Parts: sequence; structure tokens; C-alpha cells
Amino acid sequence: MSHTLVLLRHGESEWNAKNLFTGWVDVALTEKGQREAVRGGELMRDAGVLPDVVHTSLQRRAINTACLALDAADRHWIPVHRSWRLNERHYGALQGKDKKQTLEEFGEEQFMLWRRSFDTPPPPLDDDAEFSQAHDVRYAGLGDELPRTECLKDVIARFLPYWESSVVPDLREGKVVLVAAHGNSLRALVKHLDGISDDDIAGLNIPTGMPLVYRLDDDLRPTVPGGEYLDPEAAAAAAAAVASQGR
Amino acid sequence: MSHTLVLLRHGESEWNAKNLFTGWVDVALTEKGQREAVRGGELMRDAGVLPDVVHTSLQRRAINTACLALDAADRHWIPVHRSWRLNERHYGALQGKDKKQTLEEFGEEQFMLWRRSFDTPPPPLDDDAEFSQAHDVRYAGLGDELPRTECLKDVIARFLPYWESSVVPDLREGKVVLVAAHGNSLRALVKHLDGISDDDIAGLNIPTGMPLVYRLDDDLRPTVPGGEYLDPEAAAAAAAAVASQGR
Repeated sequence: MSHTLVLLRHGESEWNAKNLFTGWVDVALTEKGQREAVRGGELMRDAGVLPDVVHTSLQRRAINTACLALDAADRHWIPVHRSWRLNERHYGALQGKDKKQTLEEFGEEQFMLWRRSFDTPPPPLDDDAEFSQAHDVRYAGLGDELPRTECLKDVIARFLPYWESSVVPDLREGKVVLVAAHGNSLRALVKHLDGISDDDIAGLNIPTGMPLVYRLDDDLRPTVPGGEYLDPEAAAAAAAAVASQGR
Repeated sequence: MSHTLVLLRHGESEWNAKNLFTGWVDVALTEKGQREAVRGGELMRDAGVLPDVVHTSLQRRAINTACLALDAADRHWIPVHRSWRLNERHYGALQGKDKKQTLEEFGEEQFMLWRRSFDTPPPPLDDDAEFSQAHDVRYAGLGDELPRTECLKDVIARFLPYWESSVVPDLREGKVVLVAAHGNSLRALVKHLDGISDDDIAGLNIPTGMPLVYRLDDDLRPTVPGGEYLDPEAAAAAAAAVASQGR
């Protein structure tokens, strides 16, 4: 049996547009981000890659991307599952800060360490800080699991249990699975699928609003390493743009 | 324990605006309908009536109403359940027909019988007809249960099993439950909750985009018969407008 997994990173958010670190802050899509989501759904529809089930984070930008893309693909009616384990990386004390100012204040080395280091998280965010989620009702059940900051290694550690318990069973049943999520939760997934090393994952950028299709074998290994974008040329151009953020 | 149930009928659809019988045809919301959904969410937010879980039909106009309303209420992240049992009444051979033309062609008596009779369905829709759902993949699992036409009695018969199996358990757990659905699936629910007779249900119209809140006792009987609209004046005016459709 072939297994089909589609990854979709949310379109541009209000804070992407303002060049702020977002993390767990629940910002909305911009109009451009909404158009990206619709376009992503049209690409799925036109390619005949039609999800049977969708998994999203608990964050508005991924949830609304899924709503808009699935509506455009005429698959708005499929079952929906959500988990905080698909959320974006928690950016700790950087949440709400300007990327360019942070780069200037802390310098290139520290900036890139926070953005791309595998196991060095930013300083933790205080529970009383403006952009903390410590008092957000949607995370009330997490207890000690609620992150105050995360590196990619942390994201992988909280993402993989959901992958195994909730996404893999859908794939095993032969369902086409859409995961509508975030730059770093999707990097965590791609690292796992493609067996990318802790060092090499730093160089991997996933563009927004571009469905990335993995066909998996029975061991859930990609038949094409890195998967296939439904619009490869646009994806390559967009990935290059993501890599230059903060410059 | 008090149980809170919120009913939300989808906002204006493209075929509401064109005055066509819609039923199971999967039309989109108009811009007005989208604004109604957002307004419904704002009313819930302002009243502090915050759903913990949402149940929708498999139809775009209810699904997108739920998306928009929950986003406006900052509850976009709650669990979602969908079922064909919450769909609008199947309007049989009337699906796609103009309401005013149908009234003129068949006369007041037959028209009102089809629209409001408890147990007289319109003629069935042929599986090869333009507006049939017999070949719609989302209903492929229904087999013999797929309706070709329905009266309100039929809607109640297919709605109540879902109510008992899926909505009642959420209420029993103390969750605030939102049901985002359609004129007739919500009439089926209101008839059940308020114990309205087969004759009297004909006179009941539920306005679009207006959250209707039921506080239920432990026997799941309404503490206030008929529930309470979050915006009672607007609801009364809208219900009057619905009653005059087709004129």
C-alpha cells in the first residue's frame, strides 16, 4: 500500500509581515496569507491530491490555512484533529520581538543560534510577560508540559508522540493525510521522515502555502527523499526568500 | 450541573440570496453570510458563551459559518466533529428550483406542504440529476441511508441518533456545545428539546447567524423554553423575514 502525506505550512501571518518572532502568539493570516492558503488548496485540487483527514495545531494561522485550503480543494467536510503538539516552536523571550532589531542587538552568531541551532533554545518567556501563553485556556490541560521556550530538539520531542499516536494510524488506514502546521513543527516532521541529521536540518526551509507531498512506503519511509512540491518552481523561490528572513 | 448548548444557523448562502431551494447542494456563503457568521461569533464572545466543542454538518455553509464564528470568538482551536446527520433537509426534486417559480407553478397549498408539512416530502431527486448527491464522495459510505428527499420527520429520524451518540455525551461532560447547522436540522433539534408538536413546528423559524442558547437541566430539558437569543431583537426581526421567503 502507498501512503500519502501532505504538509502545508500556513501562509503569511500578520507578524511574518511585520518581521516579528511569533512562536506561540496566536496571530492571524494577512490577506496575502489567506490567498496563499486558497492557492495551496487549488494546487491540491488540480493535482488530485485530496486529503481524507486533516491535522492542525491549535493556532489560528494554521487552522485558517486548513479551512481555506480545504474549502478550495472541495474537501472542507473531512474530519479535523488538532493538537498543541503541532504548534510552532515556542520562541521564548523572543516572542514579540523584531527580528531585525534582535539581529542588530545580539549579533549574527547569537541570532542564528536561536533561529537555527538544534538544541539551544532562546531564554524562557516569563509567565507574566505580554506574549506568554501560561494563562491561555486552550493550554490549561498541559500542566508541566507547557513550554516557555523551545529549540527544534524540543519541538521534535513533543511532536513525535502525536505523529505516532494520531497521524501514523490514519496513514496505515490508507487515508490521504494533510498536516497543516508551522515552519518548525513541519521541519521536525521532515527531519524525522527523511532522516536528516541534527546539523543538516539547520539548512532546511519550508515555504508557506505550498503543499509538499510525501509518498511513503510500508515502513513510512519517503519513496522520494524530501517529498515533492505540487508547484516546485514557486517552492524553490519561496524557500530562498524564507532563508533570508531577518536580513 | 447546568448544560449549555448553542445553536447557530449558517448565514446567508448564495442560493438563499437567489431564492433557490438548496437542501444538500453544497453552496457557499455570500459576503453577507460571512459577516453574519463573524457577528454570531462576536455575540458569543461578548456574552462569554464560549464553546468547548463544535458539531457541524458536512456542508460548506455550516462549516464556514463555524470557522468564522469561532475565529471571531477566539475559540477556533476547539475540537470539531462533523456528520451528514446535521445536514439541511434534502429537498428532493426541488433542489435547484426557484422558490417563487415553484410557488407559482404548484400553488400556495402544495408549496407550503413541501416547505412546512411534517411528513410529506417533495418528490425524490433522481440519482443522475444535476443537483443529486448520489455520486458525492463525502456520502459514499452512507449506502441505503443516503436520502433522495426528506420531510422534517425524516430529518428528525436521522438527526436524533447523532444527538444521542455524539452531542449528549459532550453536554453530560459539562462542555459548552456549539451546533452549527441548518434551518431544518436545527428545527429538528428544537422540536426535540422543547417537545413541540408535529403541527406546531411548522410555525417555527430559526434566523441565520444568531446564536440561540439553551441552558439544559440534568434531564437535558430547557430551563427556558425556546432558549434565549444573544441578540433577541435582531432574532425576532430575522425570524419574521425567514417566514416570508418565497413571497
